[in-house]
Parts: sequence; structure tokens; C-alpha cells
Amino acid sequence: MASQAWRWYMEYTSPHHGYILAIKEYLYSGLTSFQSVDIVDTHAFGRCLILDGKIQSAQMDEHVYHEALIHPAVARHHRPRRVLIMGGGEGAVLRELCKYSFLEKIVMVDIDAEVVALCKKHLPRWHGNCFEDPRVEVLHLDARRYLAENPHQFDIIYSDLTEPAEEGPSYLLFTKQFYSLVRERLAPGGILVVQAGGISLDFIEIHAAVRNTLRLCFSRVKSYRAHIPSFNSDWGFIMACDGSVPVELPGEEVDRFLRESAVDLRFYDGETHTGMFRLPKDIREALDRDSTVIEDDHPLSIY
Amino acid sequence: MASQAWRWYMEYTSPHHGYILAIKEYLYSGLTSFQSVDIVDTHAFGRCLILDGKIQSAQMDEHVYHEALIHPAVARHHRPRRVLIMGGGEGAVLRELCKYSFLEKIVMVDIDAEVVALCKKHLPRWHGNCFEDPRVEVLHLDARRYLAENPHQFDIIYSDLTEPAEEGPSYLLFTKQFYSLVRERLAPGGILVVQAGGISLDFIEIHAAVRNTLRLCFSRVKSYRAHIPSFNSDWGFIMACDGSVPVELPGEEVDRFLRESAVDLRFYDGETHTGMFRLPKDIREALDRDSTVIEDDHPLSIY
Amino acid sequence: MASQAWRWYMEYTSPHHGYILAIKEYLYSGLTSFQSVDIVDTHAFGRCLILDGKIQSAQMDEHVYHEALIHPAVARHHRPRRVLIMGGGEGAVLRELCKYSFLEKIVMVDIDAEVVALCKKHLPRWHGNCFEDPRVEVLHLDARRYLAENPHQFDIIYSDLTEPAEEGPSYLLFTKQFYSLVRERLAPGGILVVQAGGISLDFIEIHAAVRNTLRLCFSRVKSYRAHIPSFNSDWGFIMACDGSVPVELPGEEVDRFLRESAVDLRFYDGETHTGMFRLPKDIREALDRDSTVIEDDHPLSIY
Amino acid sequence: MASQAWRWYMEYTSPHHGYILAIKEYLYSGLTSFQSVDIVDTHAFGRCLILDGKIQSAQMDEHVYHEALIHPAVARHHRPRRVLIMGGGEGAVLRELCKYSFLEKIVMVDIDAEVVALCKKHLPRWHGNCFEDPRVEVLHLDARRYLAENPHQFDIIYSDLTEPAEEGPSYLLFTKQFYSLVRERLAPGGILVVQAGGISLDFIEIHAAVRNTLRLCFSRVKSYRAHIPSFNSDWGFIMACDGSVPVELPGEEVDRFLRESAVDLRFYDGETHTGMFRLPKDIREALDRDSTVIEDDHPLSIY
Repeated sequence: MASQAWRWYMEYTSPHHGYILAIKEYLYSGLTSFQSVDIVDTHAFGRCLILDGKIQSAQMDEHVYHEALIHPAVARHHRPRRVLIMGGGEGAVLRELCKYSFLEKIVMVDIDAEVVALCKKHLPRWHGNCFEDPRVEVLHLDARRYLAENPHQFDIIYSDLTEPAEEGPSYLLFTKQFYSLVRERLAPGGILVVQAGGISLDFIEIHAAVRNTLRLCFSRVKSYRAHIPSFNSDWGFIMACDGSVPVELPGEEVDRFLRESAVDLRFYDGETHTGMFRLPKDIREALDRDSTVIEDDHPLSIY
Repeated sequence: MASQAWRWYMEYTSPHHGYILAIKEYLYSGLTSFQSVDIVDTHAFGRCLILDGKIQSAQMDEHVYHEALIHPAVARHHRPRRVLIMGGGEGAVLRELCKYSFLEKIVMVDIDAEVVALCKKHLPRWHGNCFEDPRVEVLHLDARRYLAENPHQFDIIYSDLTEPAEEGPSYLLFTKQFYSLVRERLAPGGILVVQAGGISLDFIEIHAAVRNTLRLCFSRVKSYRAHIPSFNSDWGFIMACDGSVPVELPGEEVDRFLRESAVDLRFYDGETHTGMFRLPKDIREALDRDSTVIEDDHPLSIY
Repeated sequence: MASQAWRWYMEYTSPHHGYILAIKEYLYSGLTSFQSVDIVDTHAFGRCLILDGKIQSAQMDEHVYHEALIHPAVARHHRPRRVLIMGGGEGAVLRELCKYSFLEKIVMVDIDAEVVALCKKHLPRWHGNCFEDPRVEVLHLDARRYLAENPHQFDIIYSDLTEPAEEGPSYLLFTKQFYSLVRERLAPGGILVVQAGGISLDFIEIHAAVRNTLRLCFSRVKSYRAHIPSFNSDWGFIMACDGSVPVELPGEEVDRFLRESAVDLRFYDGETHTGMFRLPKDIREALDRDSTVIEDDHPLSIY
Repeated sequence: MASQAWRWYMEYTSPHHGYILAIKEYLYSGLTSFQSVDIVDTHAFGRCLILDGKIQSAQMDEHVYHEALIHPAVARHHRPRRVLIMGGGEGAVLRELCKYSFLEKIVMVDIDAEVVALCKKHLPRWHGNCFEDPRVEVLHLDARRYLAENPHQFDIIYSDLTEPAEEGPSYLLFTKQFYSLVRERLAPGGILVVQAGGISLDFIEIHAAVRNTLRLCFSRVKSYRAHIPSFNSDWGFIMACDGSVPVELPGEEVDRFLRESAVDLRFYDGETHTGMFRLPKDIREALDRDSTVIEDDHPLSIY
């Protein structure tokens, strides 16, 4: 039966639950110095980037993930000039940021130059050639080392890193010690945004731990989420800052900001914003019940 | 390896995408006159009811589904007295409705008496013995025939039916002709609520078609959604009514209503409500682009 | 898609290889005092008995397994009168043995009375009511204890037991110490036959270990095999005895024996016999390379 | 869980049965003018060649397949000089044939030059550089056209083609009309050998049809089989010729022939040979019951 799919991606979320996705074509499959990389075309979600066996972004819904990660903080800050991205190899965070003409400097620190090169080649819709934007500087360093060695300050810092698995390369970029360092690199009124795992009744441990950890470093910490079908979950983000101004904005202000910035998006607007920041009661209570904190010498153990 | 799971539930959402769920124990597996029924215990989601190979509700998140279905309409109507449920075999809609002391009559019309009996036996947490509540009347009839033959009027009518697959038993309960009949059975100020399929970038056809169909019959039609992990999707609901009052309520009014009704819920409150009714921009646009209508002689063909 | 199968049996032969089998209907699923039991109808193989997540026998090919287990030893012994079966809960070994009018006594020792009762009810084609044959005696005891406490001697002893997993109930019925005891219970000229795991390039460890262990106890030990599709492998059996007569028979003698015994079989005859006893060169060499022995205090660890 | 496999090969043998195989690494994945090609490394079977979603040969057991295909006919013919291979892109049939110093000419006709080039690069153990042997001539043509246009005669002709699926490229190379043409290209005493599908209780239709078709063209037609774990089945081959000499040899003659030819193999010897040619009774009867014939205008429809 020639039409039956035989190439599959299978992701177990636990030993008792998983999902399967047929792969139409393998564009790339190999190892970098840091991780395994697959770039594939799928019937269900279009092109996908898979790192260490986890889907990082999919053509069908990467705009949801990247707009949700980037824009609420820009709208809240209102007029950032200097921005730092930790991770973000696909270049889609660059694409979203480059839409703002008032941004003057965008530094992206992603340790894996090979992943960035593969994304440049195979994911053109993701980066939209924004790697060429003169405001963009890309560095292939460990983000923690970069922050320790460079005293520059940023208006917004984005953490777009893979999950803090104990054995993974990102674990030390999710700890209390690391977030204290990040805080020192934020300019006054600065904001940190972290992509922070699933936010769902059956998968919330990572988000809760990152949130608890951030609360030890920042006075204002707010979770929000968007549904990402290719992640098989509602996905959580966290905005963290200091000061007296509430993190969140009314929807109308979001719409006005986007209009004034001449930015038109696919997923994000004022109504989307309002929905993203209203978590269901049971989720809020599950987050409140959790007290795990991630420290340099106390990693998070996850499936 | 004795600990490896061997009993699995596998649901294909398309020929190229699906999910797999290990089954700890089979409590029941058989055929009624209308459908196949499996009641199983799973590691990931607890006990599950599966009808014709689709999970209908799971212990872990059935409260999300049933609270989302039931309470927004009660809050909006404010003081309903007579309610009709079409479908709802598990009894969990009864459980939610029976929390309101002001309700006087709850009629549930579910064609499949065998499913109801199995749920009574195997899903005690779902119905909480509300089948015994004196306000509840359960009829095992085709809902369309019931409405055609009974002139009673209801303040709220809930459609908690399986999906309108062409060959399925529910198809004629999702058509323009049927909704016109439902409208005649609504008391002045009455509200129809329909569980209406996934509401997600990769799975929105059913919801869009039901919404378009309802719009031909009602002047106010509003979609909302909740994330149901065991359905593997954000799930959509639709509230439909006539009249000049907006369908939706501010969150504070929801909280006040629940407090005054002395009803304390796990998922639903004012903040949840506000989040549920704010759909993302791309979803709103996808719904607006769709123009499919379901008619008695024009069914919806779905995977 | 109502026709898509959703109930599946999945068996991993390693973390990297497995097979999946759709289940048409669950007839029984539960736990006995010793093991889990599923009796299911499948599209591919008909009715199947599954113990602890492993298919034990399937309607499509159980005749292959049971004829291969039983008849070569009867043909070789030529005129056995007393036979012992260890395990064999389905009753199909009884069915095969009862075909021989010259047998006078058939003792079956299966520890799990509940499995036997379930097989009697759900697998009528397997046992063909042979549990009622007056020559048959069924005992629900540990086979090792039975042999230790009963001095009776048998012309053939069959080991039809689940695999010797370390944590499983059968492990102590595959050791050197146990086979020494079995040998004492064989009458002069007696034969032991053991179902002994897969015999295939990718799955041969169990067979090799059982064979090595038997060789420490018997002077003649001969492996043979049959292809069992529902076991996903060529399956191995071992005949062990003492004395000077070769274990194997020419095909013509097998045919003559069956004719004289008025026994007509589906799978087994002289040509089948000759094929079963000729193992490929690479398999013979893989067996010869292995030197594992199973002892009471040195179990076999398998996936 | 970084160690969990996420790249899988899944092969459905029917809508209700299949198997799954984790892929360690993708070496190649693409389309030629004729078919899709995947070359992968697997944990369970080593390197594998997959054409149109079917495993063609695997490192662990390709020697079984290729030795079973090649050597019985050479031993039976005793001293062939000119040999034709139809298909055989991996080059492993060349490797087996080149072991015979008395062979003078080996013509291989495989339509897909790209597959041959990929196998040369990625499957060095398969061909062992035998493409360079001066006796070997490789042509990239349709085999039927080659035979129609070239009057050369051969002592042995091997058909090592993918299955005769109606829509596949090989279908017209399995018909009565084609085999009549092949027969004209056999030298006196010549032998045709065909790889001919699974030979198992649940998968025998292709083998039976090819066998019936060959019987219309040759006076002696004999099936034999070998267990190929990576094909998930016992696999069938057919030897066809004319004349009065029985097709099959006694095992001792096979051993003497191999010794005299100074050929030492991994799978095949006299004992293996005897086992391969003895089919079980139920398989023989299933083959005898089938009467399907494949003709140019009457293809075989298979899953």
C-alpha cells in the first residue's frame, strides 16, 4: 500500500501517553556538537524543526508561539530599544522583533551555530532573512557566559531555550542563580520573558517551577499561555519585571500600540492578549500549590 | 518486560496524526444498540468513557468540559427554571445543573439507555447520584423526535451530543432544520448551548459549520473554548440566543452570580470566563472564512 | 472515522522494535492471583489469549504451536502411556494428546485455576472439551512442588510454560536444578519437551540458555522450530532424553506412525517434521556460541 | 526523555496489524525517478534499505535472503556460466554470485540507476565492491524490454524484484506473459529463481499466485522459504525449470558442491537446504487451494 505513511515521529509525553505524526519528507537529520537535529516536512503541521526528539516549531503554528513570546512584552514596555534573545535559533524571534522600527539593537545568543545555519537554509519562512537586518547581532556562546562577561543592559530579555532537563544543555539557564544574573542585565523598567513549558492539567511541573524560581528574583511575575497544536498542549510563557506598574495591559491598549507601531500580526491582538492572560481557575490553583524552585545545584527532573 | 503497557487506545485525528494512550484496565467493552462503549482506566487521564472509538470524557478533565458547557449559560440567563439536555449520558451535566437550587426541572433526553446504565455503574464520580434528584427526568428517545412531539419550553437547552459524522446517530441533531425546531422550544430569553468540536488551527471545520448553521437560526451566536487535554485540543462551545442583550458577561458579574448562587467550581469563575470567550485572532479569522452550513440533506463529511 | 481501529495490543520486543495488533473485541480482561489475562478477538489472528502482556496463543496458528510441541515426542517414543503437562492452561495440549487412543493417563499441572476456567469458557476450540476426557487429570499446583512430592513416572513430560523472566512465576521451572528433578520423573526411554522461546537471529538468548541448561542434565538434546506468525518469530522447542537412540525420526516413519495411530493433523506430518528439525547454519552457530546456563540462583535476565 | 526514540518506521501489513522499528539515523531519504528510497540505521536490524516504504534488506539478515535466493539454483545447476539478475540493486546478489569462480558472465538489469548508486555509496557490506568485478555488467533498463530485445541465453535467471503491486513498477515482471519470455531466454537446463513474497499462514497470496503463474510456463516449480526477521515473516522463493531432473538436491550433495566450489557461507549449507525445501503441511495445502494466476491484463491486488 504505497500511500500508507511509513516515516513517523513519535513523542512520548509519559510512558503511557504519546503522539504520532507522519513525516512526508526528511530534509535533514544529523547531530551538531550540542544536540540532534531533524528538519522534516509533515502532512499535519507542514515543516517542523525537531531538536533532541522534541518538536521546537512547526510551520502551521510557529507564528502563535513566536508572536505570543515576543509581542506582549514589547507592548507592555512600549518603546524598547535594546533587546537580547537567548536561544531562538530558528530566527523567527528576529522576524517578529524586526517588525518594530524603534528597536535599535537585537542581540541573539544561541550556542549552536550549526542549528542556526540549518535553520537559515531550511526554514526561510521562519527567519524571513532577518539575520541580515543591520540591527541584529548573532553570537554563538553560552548565554550564561555571555551575560556574566558582558555588562550591557537590555530593555527586554527573551529566554527561548529548550527545556531544563537535568542532562540537557539548557538546565543552568533556568535557575535562581541565573535569573539573578539576568536581572542585573535589565535596564530600568526592563522585562524578562521566558518560554516556560506546557500549562495544562497533565503537564504543568516545568512551568510551575520556572514561575516559582522567577518569583524569588522579580517582584512581578505573570504567566500566560497559547494553544500550540504541534506541542500537543496549551503552552506557557512568563513575563517577569520589577516596579509598580501591572504587567498586563487592557486589550484596547494592545490594539492601539500595534496600530501606532504599524505592526499587523496573525495571532496576537488585544482580544488575543486578554484571553492569553486569563488562566482557568484549576490551572491557577495547581500553580499556586507547587513550590518547586530550580537552583544550580537542584535541577528539575522531568520525563 | 512485564511493566511495559500492552493495552493501548489509539486515535487518529487524520491518516497522518494521532495519539496513543496506555490502558491500565478494561472495565467494560461492548456494543449497545447504538454504539460501541469502552470504559477504561488509564494512567494518564484516569477513568475514560469511549464511544465509537472517541474519548467522551476523562476523569482528569471532565470537570473542565462539563463546567464549560453548563455554567456560562446559567450565569448569562441568571435564573433559569427549566432546562433540557440532549445527550449527556454520563450524568455529569446533571451533576453541574443540580448545584443550582433555583432550577425546577431538568429533562435529559439520551437515546441510549444502555450507555446511561453503564455510566451509572462505572462513572459514579461523573453523576454523583444526581440521577436520583427529584427534579431530574431522564428519557431514552431520539432528541429530535422528543422536541417535535413535545411542546414544552425550556430556558436553556444543552446539546451534549457526539459529533455530526454523516453515518453517526447524531447527524440530524446538528442541522439548520433541527436548530429551527430547537428555537421554537426555547422560552423567551432562552439560550441554546452546543458542544461543537475542536477549535484549533488544525481542527476547526466542525465548529465553523455548526456556528454558521446556528447563525441562520439565532441572532446572537458566540463561540468559546476550553483546553481539554484528553481531547488533545482546545475544545469549542457555542452559545446561541435571540434578543438585544450581549451573550457574554464581564468576569466580575460571573463571580458575583456564582457567589450568590452558592456554587463553587473547580474550573469556572470570572477570570476563566473572560479567557474562554477571547479567541485568538487567527482562529477568529479562520471561523470567519468558513461558510459551510449543515442541512438535513447536506451533511458534514469529516475524518 | 468510525471504522478506524482504536483498541490495540502493542508488544515491544525491545525498546526499538515492536508490533501492533488491532483488537476487535475484548472478551475478558482482568487479574488472577498469578498474572493478568486478556482474551480478545483480533482481525488478523482471530481470538487470542494474552498473559502478562504476551500473546500465548492465537486462533490462526495455535495448531502450529501445539502440534509442534506435542507430536514429535509422541512419534519418537512411539507408544507412551503416561504423560505429564506442566502449564498448558488453554487445554490445546490436551486436545492434541487425546487424539492418541493408546495414552492411558494425562496429568496437567497448571498453577492458575482461574486461567484454566477462563480458557474453558472462552477458548472452546482450543480444548475441544478434552478437559472431560476420563484419562485427563488437572491439578492446580506449582509444577516443581508437584514433581518433588509425587514419585510417579511419565513417558513424556511437556513444559508448556511462560517465559523464564526473573520476576515471573515460571523462572524456577527452567533451571538446572529443576530439570534434574524432571529427569528423575521420566520413565526409562522417557522424553522431555520444552517450549523454549524464539529461535531467530534477533531473539535467541532464551532458547540458547534453556538448551545449554538441558544439556547438563540429558545426553541427547535437540532443538527444532516452527514459524508462528502471532509470536512474530520462528519459535523453538527442545526435545531432551537419554539413551542411544537418535532423537529425530525420518519423515517417512513419522507419516507411518501417524497413519497407524489414525491421527490426521493440520500442520505436522513427515515433511513438516524434517523441515522443523533442520536449523539454518547461522542459527546453529549462534546456539553453539552461547554458554549461558540457568540455575536456581542464577536467573536469566530478558527484556 | 532524551533517550526515547522518536524516529520510527511503521509498516502496516494490514489495517489491523503492523510493526514498528526505531530508526537510529537517517543516512538518506529521497525520491528517484521510480520510487522513494530511505537508507537508515536501526537499533534492531542495523542498516536497512527501504523502497516505497517496504524494507528491502537489513544488515542483520540480508545474508539469509541473498544466500537463499542465489545458492540453491547454482548448486542444482552445478556449473552455470552465464547468469542474469533482474533487479538486485543493492549488489548483494552480485556478491554472492562472484564467489563462484566458474561463472563467466553476470548481467544485472535494474531499472533504477539512482538506487544502485545510493547502494554503492551507503551499503558497502552488501556489494563488497563486486560492481567492479570484470564479469559483471550492469544495465539500467526495464527488464522486460531487455529480454524482449536481447536474444542472449542464460543458465540461471534471478528475479529479485519488489512486489507485484498493481500500481508498482514491477507488476509486468510477474505475469504469465513475462515468464513465457523468460523461459525463452533460458539455456537448456536453465533455471529461473523468483523471490516471491511471504509464505506464512497470514500472508501467502502473492507467493501462491506467482507459483500458479510459473506452473503454467514450467514443468518443475518448487517453493522454498527462509525466516527473515526484518521482513517479519517466513519468506518464499520459487525455483522453476523444465526437464526430468528433480529440482531439489539431498543435503549432502549441497555440502559437497559448496566444498568443491570453495564457497563457505553463513546461512546456507546442506542442512539449511533440506530445511528450506520442507514446507509445513498447512502451508502446502494453502498453496494448493489457491488458483490465482497473474496475467498482463489481470494484475494481483494486494494490501
